Amino acid sequence: MRIALDAMGGDNAPEQTVKGAVNYLCQWPDENVKVILVGHEDVLRAEIEKYSFDEARINIVHVPKVVAMNDKPARIVKTKRNSSLVRIVELMKNGEADGAVSAGNTGALLSASLFLLDRIPGVRRPAICPLIPSAHGGFLLCDAGANVDVRARDLVQFALMARANSIHIFNQPRPRIGLLNIGTEVGKGNELTMRAHDLFVTHVDNFVGNVEARDVFAGVADVVICDGFVGNTMLKVVEGMVLHVAGWAQDKLKQHPVSKLALSLILRPALKEMARELNYEEHGGSPLLGINGILVVCHGTSNAKAIMNALRTATRCVNENLIASIQKGIKAHMDIFEEQNAFTAK
Amino acid sequence: MRIALDAMGGDNAPEQTVKGAVNYLCQWPDENVKVILVGHEDVLRAEIEKYSFDEARINIVHVPKVVAMNDKPARIVKTKRNSSLVRIVELMKNGEADGAVSAGNTGALLSASLFLLDRIPGVRRPAICPLIPSAHGGFLLCDAGANVDVRARDLVQFALMARANSIHIFNQPRPRIGLLNIGTEVGKGNELTMRAHDLFVTHVDNFVGNVEARDVFAGVADVVICDGFVGNTMLKVVEGMVLHVAGWAQDKLKQHPVSKLALSLILRPALKEMARELNYEEHGGSPLLGINGILVVCHGTSNAKAIMNALRTATRCVNENLIASIQKGIKAHMDIFEEQNAFTAK
Repeated sequence: MRIALDAMGGDNAPEQTVKGAVNYLCQWPDENVKVILVGHEDVLRAEIEKYSFDEARINIVHVPKVVAMNDKPARIVKTKRNSSLVRIVELMKNGEADGAVSAGNTGALLSASLFLLDRIPGVRRPAICPLIPSAHGGFLLCDAGANVDVRARDLVQFALMARANSIHIFNQPRPRIGLLNIGTEVGKGNELTMRAHDLFVTHVDNFVGNVEARDVFAGVADVVICDGFVGNTMLKVVEGMVLHVAGWAQDKLKQHPVSKLALSLILRPALKEMARELNYEEHGGSPLLGINGILVVCHGTSNAKAIMNALRTATRCVNENLIASIQKGIKAHMDIFEEQNAFTAK
Repeated sequence: MRIALDAMGGDNAPEQTVKGAVNYLCQWPDENVKVILVGHEDVLRAEIEKYSFDEARINIVHVPKVVAMNDKPARIVKTKRNSSLVRIVELMKNGEADGAVSAGNTGALLSASLFLLDRIPGVRRPAICPLIPSAHGGFLLCDAGANVDVRARDLVQFALMARANSIHIFNQPRPRIGLLNIGTEVGKGNELTMRAHDLFVTHVDNFVGNVEARDVFAGVADVVICDGFVGNTMLKVVEGMVLHVAGWAQDKLKQHPVSKLALSLILRPALKEMARELNYEEHGGSPLLGINGILVVCHGTSNAKAIMNALRTATRCVNENLIASIQKGIKAHMDIFEEQNAFTAK
């Protein structure tokens, strides 16, 4: 098992990416699991020297270039072929890596993987599917931002792909799939969700119907399906609320006529822990579902822990043969994806 | 000033609606401000008897019927003409009330007001625009759920209407208007938001550009514009998160090796206060923007405080002549709304 890591990708590279890789190897003592660090060799060597671990489990692949967050994704394979982001995808394409991880530009990762690896047969659009933590173990949200304008059949594909991903994550043979909507009753929603609801009834196993955003934290579904605009907005509301509520709570408690010291001893650690648990970014990133290869994307702000968890996610997806599971799921419902003009009609 | 209250509307009617009306009158000692309680006379008389206040400031209008949450909105004026929900709108239509408040079925209120009061000239779709509280004073969210499939020009109308509403709420001559999007850069988003961005630049005063859901709680805009599906989802994420975070925090703190008593004395009140402040439902409901009359809709779960605040909102909207302000705003930009096929094109 060889996982390629874009060691130069993300706001905290290469310090946190290399640290994450080292931690991953130390906590996963299987000698057959190796990490390929992709980036500038001198820089990476300097980082590696900070740690003591089994260096035989790390390979370095040197590339001179880095993809920036503002690089245009569409032409990234042409303009930055010699970058860490493109190279990790190439390593998979060439059979030199079994999976890959990056905290770089998500659009560029999508573009490079579509160009070099292509989609799993039958898949129209790859989707992002992070785990949103909650007190009830969390749920997968798909699509969380890869596709902003979609059709009802795309939502069915997202459900089939996210389902394959969720079976192992939740260790449940039949995860509950919900369709995010603004009412639970049948017939609620916009054109997209109304059409999707009908298709889900026929094509999605254990479909629990429409679910509302207020209920997803209470554990009404294991997988929540929506378009990428709504999903990304939801992710960002959660992100904003966590920061906001934690900050507000501290301000409120400071005003209370009780020793500030006591509060900082009891409360701040508890709030910090909660903010950390609610922070989906630390929960291992998301495989780009639908791409014909295991490419796990993480938030640009990923720290060492997030990178370590993403490497674990990649390892798990390879071990569980996620690609084959998705392929099987899509194949079983090809009738709706293959219909004539299936994708020109809604 | 006469505000008609749907005394039978909402989960907690008539106890909380009547209590809310009484509290409103007691806290607003202007004799010229009166409340018309609409509902079953016997029931309402029994509720009123619980309180001691200037009964001359309340009129009762008897109607036998109540609109249920599962009544079909479209035909409500035909099927339930003799209901409290329809009657408050009729009182406005007949000039017997200056404004109205209801915690009843929002779809039915929309339908009844469109049928009986019609829209302000030039308005295509009425929108809902509640205040979302935050540590920075909050922001108006429009549309929060009245319109699930909209066009870019509709978003411009929402912005113009919400702007008129916000000027008085925030006491700012030029409130900052943001377009909710999944990236702040120009060119980000789905087809709808990309088109809308271009129109906003030309037609919306003090447009601060795209705003992301993670930043709206930090006060980046006074008014946040989106379609009703996204807005309603956002509202519900906030609702769900507040409950979830408060519950989770309490669980976490219980585990801490410090006296539970101390925690319950310090923390629970602080968390409760915060949950209350974050609870948009208590913040006075939302006028149905674009309807040719002041109709304030509240959440179905409204308590007496929410009803009292909604009566205040209605009074404020009448005093400030919100209808005229909206009309002026729409009129100044009629060029884009009047273009041939304006509403068949995007």
